[in-house]
Amino acid sequence: MISSELKLPVRQLKPRTKGITILIDNGVPLNLFKDTINGAADYIDFVKFGWGTSLVTKYLEEKIDCLKQNDVQFFFGGTLFEKFLSQDKIEDYYRYCKTYGCQYVEISNGTILLSNREKASFISDFAKEFHVFSEVGSKDSAISNEQQSSDWIDYILEDLEAGAEKVITETREGGTSGLCKSDGEMRSLLIEDILRSGIKPDDLIFEAPTKKMQTCFIEKIGSDVNMANIPFQDAIPLETLRLGLRSDTFYLFE
Amino acid sequence: MISSELKLPVRQLKPRTKGITILIDNGVPLNLFKDTINGAADYIDFVKFGWGTSLVTKYLEEKIDCLKQNDVQFFFGGTLFEKFLSQDKIEDYYRYCKTYGCQYVEISNGTILLSNREKASFISDFAKEFHVFSEVGSKDSAISNEQQSSDWIDYILEDLEAGAEKVITETREGGTSGLCKSDGEMRSLLIEDILRSGIKPDDLIFEAPTKKMQTCFIEKIGSDVNMANIPFQDAIPLETLRLGLRSDTFYLFE
Amino acid sequence: MISSELKLPVRQLKPRTKGITILIDNGVPLNLFKDTINGAADYIDFVKFGWGTSLVTKYLEEKIDCLKQNDVQFFFGGTLFEKFLSQDKIEDYYRYCKTYGCQYVEISNGTILLSNREKASFISDFAKEFHVFSEVGSKDSAISNEQQSSDWIDYILEDLEAGAEKVITETREGGTSGLCKSDGEMRSLLIEDILRSGIKPDDLIFEAPTKKMQTCFIEKIGSDVNMANIPFQDAIPLETLRLGLRSDTFYLFE
Repeated sequence: MISSELKLPVRQLKPRTKGITILIDNGVPLNLFKDTINGAADYIDFVKFGWGTSLVTKYLEEKIDCLKQNDVQFFFGGTLFEKFLSQDKIEDYYRYCKTYGCQYVEISNGTILLSNREKASFISDFAKEFHVFSEVGSKDSAISNEQQSSDWIDYILEDLEAGAEKVITETREGGTSGLCKSDGEMRSLLIEDILRSGIKPDDLIFEAPTKKMQTCFIEKIGSDVNMANIPFQDAIPLETLRLGLRSDTFYLFE
Repeated sequence: MISSELKLPVRQLKPRTKGITILIDNGVPLNLFKDTINGAADYIDFVKFGWGTSLVTKYLEEKIDCLKQNDVQFFFGGTLFEKFLSQDKIEDYYRYCKTYGCQYVEISNGTILLSNREKASFISDFAKEFHVFSEVGSKDSAISNEQQSSDWIDYILEDLEAGAEKVITETREGGTSGLCKSDGEMRSLLIEDILRSGIKPDDLIFEAPTKKMQTCFIEKIGSDVNMANIPFQDAIPLETLRLGLRSDTFYLFE
Repeated sequence: MISSELKLPVRQLKPRTKGITILIDNGVPLNLFKDTINGAADYIDFVKFGWGTSLVTKYLEEKIDCLKQNDVQFFFGGTLFEKFLSQDKIEDYYRYCKTYGCQYVEISNGTILLSNREKASFISDFAKEFHVFSEVGSKDSAISNEQQSSDWIDYILEDLEAGAEKVITETREGGTSGLCKSDGEMRSLLIEDILRSGIKPDDLIFEAPTKKMQTCFIEKIGSDVNMANIPFQDAIPLETLRLGLRSDTFYLFE
């Protein structure tokens, strides 16, 4: 459906190793869910069932069926892992993921007090049975303010060594903590420090819930940056940003 | 569909006397309306057809049928009552509500100049035929700034005495007047004054259109606070906040 | 479906010469697209397929069919014209529009460097085969800051003389450039200068993506102001603003 006349960035076809788009389902109704996935499956690699929404989703199995039919992978939000862990029920979480046929899990410490070392040990455990996306960065602005570039780099490396397939960098759904300041501004120096450390961009997935952040990551890293926490309604708009078809990234790809 | 393994706040089943969720329909298309209601009816107590949208809604009867099938109550926005009243056509409004089989009406003075005493007299009149939700608070920031805690308390008590089943506290759809300042910040002292006055939280319904406000009311009053003006897309996210399944309220329910 | 009892502003029926509403499709899924159009076609005059979204829309032909069935006109976003032009492929753009049976095109210079004189020459060319909406104003805040009222007036007149049917005034989807300052505030003096110049409001279409801007234009120009870049979910809310059925414009139409 892409016009052959225009010169546009070339994107990998699915399954992709870079330029991955992860939508976040915050409780989208079933038919709108299907409508979105069916219309844009070529541009969607994963759906994350955000935080604990899967527990109050009536048609979870129907959603998962839709994803399987469209070659879209899925996982549950890291906050759900943390909820089970905080109640000392990690075995139940393991079973929960198995019940729904998850191939991927997200292991995070964005809300609970859990050292990166402890988190890494859960990564190792889960990596025996699942592909693991780990997450670095706190949902708490105060904690985020204190974490230095060197902390981020250490945590990312520790997660990758423990078996994480890729590491997700936290910003919350609104872009207000982690790689973002509480006022929504991005921590550009931190991002550049991480990229200069030798960590490969393909090993990272940047949470980018707003057009401003999506544009920024495409400017810094390119059309094929991996991005997560993309709102359902941004599946198509994000792809146009990646292709230079919207004013914000128009000149990057001339 | 709630996992039995996790310890979560227990919620009343419908029909509820507390922990009520009122969605606001701002003109949602019919199929998306049905999709949302069908998927989350367990968590939705009422739909308000916001302001005068019902007059320009093509499939109003189909929407009402969907609500009846899902045991969801409904009413028209108070602004519509005020529009009829401002044109001296309150009998027509009464007939309008009867035509659509309303069991509930909202009586407010958020836009027009109408003293609380006069409003209370309409509450008494309508309470003979309908369940009445009254509303306290102005949509005008300047008027909101001048209303003291004692005014709010007097108005709430006057409305309850006149026959209001519950009283809704105004904030507008964006959270910019009434219980909120024009910059969106909440008037915490006012809220605490109201709660300290002896008015029961179960007799109040707080307009809470944003996640920030929903979180604040759950923190102050608990999982079972009544909330209105919930956007359609927040039906599921709000329930996760009530259950401590999202980072914002995670630690309240440990 | 409008209640006959209330006295409301009288609106033209379609096809309208004023009071035009142009929705922007930013990649809405197909069924939601149909759902919105079918439910509100009386209030929708045009759909613009925003920027380059048409190139990554799987069901573009099905969307166009839906519009034809509902007597809604359409065109592609000016940014797509600019993309083809920037790659020196304007003939391909012409063919692209013909392939999809466009009767309207948008000719703009919001992103690329193109003088208004050059833009006007494209308007003349395209006006031989299409109805042309031109656009005045830059998507770049810095450039917007430097453009004086006299520039805007000159450009608008030049476009109309070149054959533009109406001229769209830029504000971006978020209301942050063109007729808006980068902080979202409207340039009221500029708007008043344009209106005082003798340019007829019916020859203009104001981009008004937010409720605040929609309200402002209705206050300044009236119920029948032409507006574009209306989000899909605002089709019904905008009509209630035009009719004085929402608090924001309640008193304008008493």
